[in-house]
Amino acid sequence: MTGTDKSIPISAETGPVVILVDPQMGENIGAAARAMLNCGVTELRLVNPRDGWPSDRAVSMSSGALERMPPVKVFNTTAEAIADLHYVYATTARPRDMVKEVFTPRTAAEDMRVRHNRGERVGMLYGAERMGLVNEDVALASAVITIPLNPGFSSLNLGQAVLLTCYEWLMTGDNTPGQQLVIGDTPPATQGDMDALYNRLETELEERRFFRAPEMKPTVVRNLRALLVRAQMTQQEVNTFHGIISALIGKKLQD
Amino acid sequence: MTGTDKSIPISAETGPVVILVDPQMGENIGAAARAMLNCGVTELRLVNPRDGWPSDRAVSMSSGALERMPPVKVFNTTAEAIADLHYVYATTARPRDMVKEVFTPRTAAEDMRVRHNRGERVGMLYGAERMGLVNEDVALASAVITIPLNPGFSSLNLGQAVLLTCYEWLMTGDNTPGQQLVIGDTPPATQGDMDALYNRLETELEERRFFRAPEMKPTVVRNLRALLVRAQMTQQEVNTFHGIISALIGKKLQD
Repeated sequence: MTGTDKSIPISAETGPVVILVDPQMGENIGAAARAMLNCGVTELRLVNPRDGWPSDRAVSMSSGALERMPPVKVFNTTAEAIADLHYVYATTARPRDMVKEVFTPRTAAEDMRVRHNRGERVGMLYGAERMGLVNEDVALASAVITIPLNPGFSSLNLGQAVLLTCYEWLMTGDNTPGQQLVIGDTPPATQGDMDALYNRLETELEERRFFRAPEMKPTVVRNLRALLVRAQMTQQEVNTFHGIISALIGKKLQD
Repeated sequence: MTGTDKSIPISAETGPVVILVDPQMGENIGAAARAMLNCGVTELRLVNPRDGWPSDRAVSMSSGALERMPPVKVFNTTAEAIADLHYVYATTARPRDMVKEVFTPRTAAEDMRVRHNRGERVGMLYGAERMGLVNEDVALASAVITIPLNPGFSSLNLGQAVLLTCYEWLMTGDNTPGQQLVIGDTPPATQGDMDALYNRLETELEERRFFRAPEMKPTVVRNLRALLVRAQMTQQEVNTFHGIISALIGKKLQD
């Protein structure tokens, strides 16, 4: 498939490049590719993959991602793999004995988005499964990304590290509402619908002597209203509730 | 290990509960456990695991996480598994034909943190590998979490879904600076250190007739200063730079 496939967001074509340095198992390359495409990131480069390339295991583990992404490019050295990029982040533990800007994935993603928007090409380096990146590779990078995980159990596999960093990139361009009430085809109830429901419930309860202590009635009514308004009912639910009241008082359903 | 192990953040002990409904492969349960502990989340419950429990494959895939977490609890039904919780989020695609509050993982995590801080126990439901959660389980949940991924390639495996949602929980309690300059033991250079360096460089260049057009000298000097100040040098780097100038002009190193 081409880069114009509608399943891939437009920004992905020039989004961050993912560079796996000395990757070992094909399965992990495939998992990284799947995580990338989940996040709309499509350009994968490999430096010196231990078991060569292409890899059937990688294709299988990618669940279709590798077939949909542009061809993976393979390089002999990290320097060659990043030569055309303007700013490169090494994902690694906080460096020692090296002066580096260290980002969280979230702030790095914001930084990447700023650079991306002004036309820079950015990339992220990931080390081999057990070893991580060697100091020489970290030194090539403009900055470091360190994922702030549980300090007593912080080891992520390659696919998960790629997922978290690419997810943060995706989120910088995402405009999904953080919270929304999904109500399908039925419209929300109006205040008038709700008022009619409260009034009916109150009347039916009054007739059945629900309010034993008259001085408590205003409080009980107020609390009932608070409960029902909190539920953010739909018109259909209001109708259902009327039906329930009718059933409980032994009246035939009206509609 | 007990819940007081120092590798586990304090908040983890009463953080969100992860509930896997009808999980199939033990490997995926193990990957979920590893992702949880990466994020300091330690309470795992299983509803009706296909291959029973305990599972050697889960232990192996968890990379030590299951041994460090409290014992996993197993339930026959989702209702039993969530009976002691106050608010439960179902991680699933946006529901149809059901009125539900739908959160992104980020906003859900903020909501969880608010509830957690006022003493509620919260949990997240995850469905089986291929099927996801059935409508009956979604209906039991107070709200839904939908991860806004690439719409053309949004299928995550179980471990990755657990990772992203638990990572967002962890981030709501994380206070790592988004960006920091790590410089190790060497202190940053002062403005005075930098000024001495500029002045020396300017003097040496002047002596060697670097500034061919005198009227351009102020601009060239200003640009050189801008370049060096942008690098945020350390004192050690300033010393190294002095040494480089000395070497280039053929002078013996001074210190």
